[in-house]
Amino acid sequence: MRSLEFKNRTSSESIKSLKLITAIKTPYLPDGRFDLEAYDDLVNMQIVNGVEGVIVGGTTGEGQLMSWDEHIMLIGHTVNCFGGSIKVIGNTGSNSTREAIHATEQGFAVGMHAALHINPYYGKTSLEGMVSHFERVLSMGPTIIYNVPSRTGQDIPPRVIHTVAQSANFAGVKECTGNDRVEQYTENGIVVWSGNDDECHDARWSHGATGVMSVASNLVPGLMRELIFGGKNPSLNAKLMPLIKWLFHEPNPIGLNTALAQLGVVRPVFRLPYVPLSLAKRVEFVNLVKEIGRENFVGEKDVKVLDSDDFMLIDRY
Amino acid sequence: MRSLEFKNRTSSESIKSLKLITAIKTPYLPDGRFDLEAYDDLVNMQIVNGVEGVIVGGTTGEGQLMSWDEHIMLIGHTVNCFGGSIKVIGNTGSNSTREAIHATEQGFAVGMHAALHINPYYGKTSLEGMVSHFERVLSMGPTIIYNVPSRTGQDIPPRVIHTVAQSANFAGVKECTGNDRVEQYTENGIVVWSGNDDECHDARWSHGATGVMSVASNLVPGLMRELIFGGKNPSLNAKLMPLIKWLFHEPNPIGLNTALAQLGVVRPVFRLPYVPLSLAKRVEFVNLVKEIGRENFVGEKDVKVLDSDDFMLIDRY
Amino acid sequence: MRSLEFKNRTSSESIKSLKLITAIKTPYLPDGRFDLEAYDDLVNMQIVNGVEGVIVGGTTGEGQLMSWDEHIMLIGHTVNCFGGSIKVIGNTGSNSTREAIHATEQGFAVGMHAALHINPYYGKTSLEGMVSHFERVLSMGPTIIYNVPSRTGQDIPPRVIHTVAQSANFAGVKECTGNDRVEQYTENGIVVWSGNDDECHDARWSHGATGVMSVASNLVPGLMRELIFGGKNPSLNAKLMPLIKWLFHEPNPIGLNTALAQLGVVRPVFRLPYVPLSLAKRVEFVNLVKEIGRENFVGEKDVKVLDSDDFMLIDRY
Amino acid sequence: MRSLEFKNRTSSESIKSLKLITAIKTPYLPDGRFDLEAYDDLVNMQIVNGVEGVIVGGTTGEGQLMSWDEHIMLIGHTVNCFGGSIKVIGNTGSNSTREAIHATEQGFAVGMHAALHINPYYGKTSLEGMVSHFERVLSMGPTIIYNVPSRTGQDIPPRVIHTVAQSANFAGVKECTGNDRVEQYTENGIVVWSGNDDECHDARWSHGATGVMSVASNLVPGLMRELIFGGKNPSLNAKLMPLIKWLFHEPNPIGLNTALAQLGVVRPVFRLPYVPLSLAKRVEFVNLVKEIGRENFVGEKDVKVLDSDDFMLIDRY
Repeated sequence: MRSLEFKNRTSSESIKSLKLITAIKTPYLPDGRFDLEAYDDLVNMQIVNGVEGVIVGGTTGEGQLMSWDEHIMLIGHTVNCFGGSIKVIGNTGSNSTREAIHATEQGFAVGMHAALHINPYYGKTSLEGMVSHFERVLSMGPTIIYNVPSRTGQDIPPRVIHTVAQSANFAGVKECTGNDRVEQYTENGIVVWSGNDDECHDARWSHGATGVMSVASNLVPGLMRELIFGGKNPSLNAKLMPLIKWLFHEPNPIGLNTALAQLGVVRPVFRLPYVPLSLAKRVEFVNLVKEIGRENFVGEKDVKVLDSDDFMLIDRY
Repeated sequence: MRSLEFKNRTSSESIKSLKLITAIKTPYLPDGRFDLEAYDDLVNMQIVNGVEGVIVGGTTGEGQLMSWDEHIMLIGHTVNCFGGSIKVIGNTGSNSTREAIHATEQGFAVGMHAALHINPYYGKTSLEGMVSHFERVLSMGPTIIYNVPSRTGQDIPPRVIHTVAQSANFAGVKECTGNDRVEQYTENGIVVWSGNDDECHDARWSHGATGVMSVASNLVPGLMRELIFGGKNPSLNAKLMPLIKWLFHEPNPIGLNTALAQLGVVRPVFRLPYVPLSLAKRVEFVNLVKEIGRENFVGEKDVKVLDSDDFMLIDRY
Repeated sequence: MRSLEFKNRTSSESIKSLKLITAIKTPYLPDGRFDLEAYDDLVNMQIVNGVEGVIVGGTTGEGQLMSWDEHIMLIGHTVNCFGGSIKVIGNTGSNSTREAIHATEQGFAVGMHAALHINPYYGKTSLEGMVSHFERVLSMGPTIIYNVPSRTGQDIPPRVIHTVAQSANFAGVKECTGNDRVEQYTENGIVVWSGNDDECHDARWSHGATGVMSVASNLVPGLMRELIFGGKNPSLNAKLMPLIKWLFHEPNPIGLNTALAQLGVVRPVFRLPYVPLSLAKRVEFVNLVKEIGRENFVGEKDVKVLDSDDFMLIDRY
Repeated sequence: MRSLEFKNRTSSESIKSLKLITAIKTPYLPDGRFDLEAYDDLVNMQIVNGVEGVIVGGTTGEGQLMSWDEHIMLIGHTVNCFGGSIKVIGNTGSNSTREAIHATEQGFAVGMHAALHINPYYGKTSLEGMVSHFERVLSMGPTIIYNVPSRTGQDIPPRVIHTVAQSANFAGVKECTGNDRVEQYTENGIVVWSGNDDECHDARWSHGATGVMSVASNLVPGLMRELIFGGKNPSLNAKLMPLIKWLFHEPNPIGLNTALAQLGVVRPVFRLPYVPLSLAKRVEFVNLVKEIGRENFVGEKDVKVLDSDDFMLIDRY
């Protein structure tokens, strides 16, 4: 599918302007397949609350537990249903260059507006290999590079970013190593989204970040909109901090999955290796919702603790 | 993805009204991947000439040579680029019930307007098995059943059609066994599209068929529009007959693939087991184009004979 | 994996000498996955009764309902467990040249002794395309060509066979079009196995066939051994005929699947689109077993009629 | 494939006794497919030099760049060709529980003797999730757990190991966090293989490790045999250290891939994102070979520096 001209291609510039992007949750049916009805509701609540983009099948959306055909289908579905109202960023990265190429071609073919690319996690490679990997996909469309060494086992150093930033398709970096790195980039004209909810307020208002790719916005999209669009707001930031700490008590998306089930907006179905947070933590969440205000969270049902028996853990999804 | 409500779902009724549907060709790049630029041009020429629907990845489009992820991607791509201008019918049928279910779920999820379903070819099954197979997919959305015993080795008899026709999603039959069968259905209120270009004029104007699912319309969409919309026209039908005979000299889409390459609208790349028509037949095509008029065919380049060396036969696509 | 030299490669000559080959049934667990315990028992009963080869994932073994990774796994499993006692012929054919190449490479890599190749069913192609298709896989190892136009919709004519027979890897033909064709080949030195249980006695003893690729031998391997090795035996042939007619009352393997479940050697689990034979037919089978003698059939449990409720029909396997 | 009884199943005890296991390299043809001829030679050289087991498709063998069907094929191939001479340990782990289950079932079905399982890298999970993940595969056969937090981003703590060690199938741990952790396990009766070539001598002779899962043994299997079987040997260990440091200058298997190409035992073909070591490093390797002695390395050709142009980097493999 070389050198094709896609209809309605989005420019890198329009991607660069997005401030609030949600790494959207993928909800499941009791047999482990996608629950597209619940998914559509989740995306819709994001749009209604002013979120500008969604990352489909990110680590939060459990792209790592999807087959590629599920993943591309979900991208295509999101574009088809919501592409006019929200930017669709497909997490078509992989630690296999072959898979990253194939998925990115397919993602753009079904209309995604931008790709999110990770460096080769687990297998790792040299910096030269990292650049070669990114170069294979950068030609296909607007691209965001994602740096999260706590997951990948390997930092993407600034010199790699500066190399790939030469491409016209380079839109920016989702950076998780902290606000010093954020500032180092933004001072050099590189667009950055904070990948950490607990740092994003400061990243945005004190370190030049354009915005955030958020997990918390799955739960409280309106408050995150205020945090990112409404000007410096240390008190709102402080108010959100206990929720954010709770969310990341275990590796994401364990907290998010548990919370959304407790809010009644997704079925309490987990694809293994994810399991719900403990009862004590679930009680804590109910209290957090009360403190912050149920009305600030997605959904309309009462927040519940849920019994351990309420959760379904699926291994052959 | 059970019981999900898709956005913009098309009704079976709106599918039933389509008269001219093209089993669209899938063009390839020299390495065997899809040539989406050429594909987009092909679809666009269909729209411009008044074709109302395309079958994506039919036998003409070589769905049998696609991996399912290629197939679903192409459906999603077509919906995304052209879904507002033309109905997209995904050939998500299979001789494996598992594959038919999976592909049909995915096809509707990425927005196809209807599914085309074949009975289990090659493996075959009992009539009871055939009904069970179709029942597994009928609940998902508007469905057209495709009967072509010369390919499948097994006729779908009227009693199977009458059983599946009970479903609200049943839109009609693509029938290739001849106009007696067509009339038998249309007299009983079942919508039929002729699956044979050489019989479609009579099917439409004398046997009650709603229209045609055409191969020839890939080449002469405007003339096929006239044939199907313009009233009884035996002289146009007679004029097209030599072209249609030429097209089906070898199993479809061998003729179509050769013709489109000669017209310069697709690269002369074949996925095996298809190979181009012989030199003598290619010379014949050039003459057919002259007789019918180059202006009635798609594309704007001169029609060429092409050397045998011009064709690329790909085995690892 | 070009030009690799496999260990323990079997010669085409050793394949040509096999007389009794069973198209082995694939049994399932209640969730639709392979029941390898039952499978191992089935293969073992074949070996004990003097069967010389098995076709893995043939149409009888429902290769058309397998994913390729299941299919190759089953070939590798069979080689690993039984490759020293019986020849393993993988049905790695496909109507997609790409898939046939890939599966055949993998099948030989995991040790299969020969490949069975079908012409491109459903999609069909020209005779030139058919030859090109077979040529792409013939170089890989011993190859049997399978002609069954009632399934494929297209006969493989003798001139195609004579062309591919030039390859040193060509072992012979599994022919289903009748004993005239069989004799036409055997008179010209081409090895033929009858693909029809009802014709195989005459094929073997009157028309020069080397033997049979049998479905019935799944049920009565010892009697089939006698029929094929023991010299002309019209009375045994006549004795088996009612069973064979029963077996093919509906498209194979519907009868076989039903029979093996009734004999208690496989779970009554069907992958759709296959469904069991009717109650009346199941009663008939019990009587056939009594007439032929339970001791001639595989397994040791009493043959049962089974209730319709005993059967499980799986659609997402 | 639940509860099946595999033929020739290896006991966990026999796995526990293996001292020298090589994480075997996967060599490629110029189009990126496996070069099975070269692979067979590599495995054969391991056997000849006294290596007792191979890990197929480990990170060294680039399992992360394989499709699962390639991976399972390679396991089946290795079992079929060499299973009588060397233990075959399939790296059927994954960060997706579904994939780990599926691959492990298939790996045991084609005859692998043991599975190597990683914790969910990149996606990560809670300790409870980690245990649940391992529990889903432990029932299938002898299992080695692999801890390499520098790749996975998450340590497997001793309490997880002690939990999974309750399973009769638990064979031991491949540990990369250092010899303190090794000793902590071996003192408690848990079998450990060092996953670090630079620490394995001390692990074996001073910290109770059973042996090593080695990368260096791809190059110098005889010397590694001596190091692990021949008693404490600090001078041999010191002699090997420069080679080992060289090997891990860039993330493994970059060094190994480069070295084996320089030794002429594999084609200089890299699957991206891996790229060869620099010219300076390649010159260094030639000197290392001279110092240690060409005769101690695999292959018989002269070691070469190779030009940068000699290497082929493949992205669509």
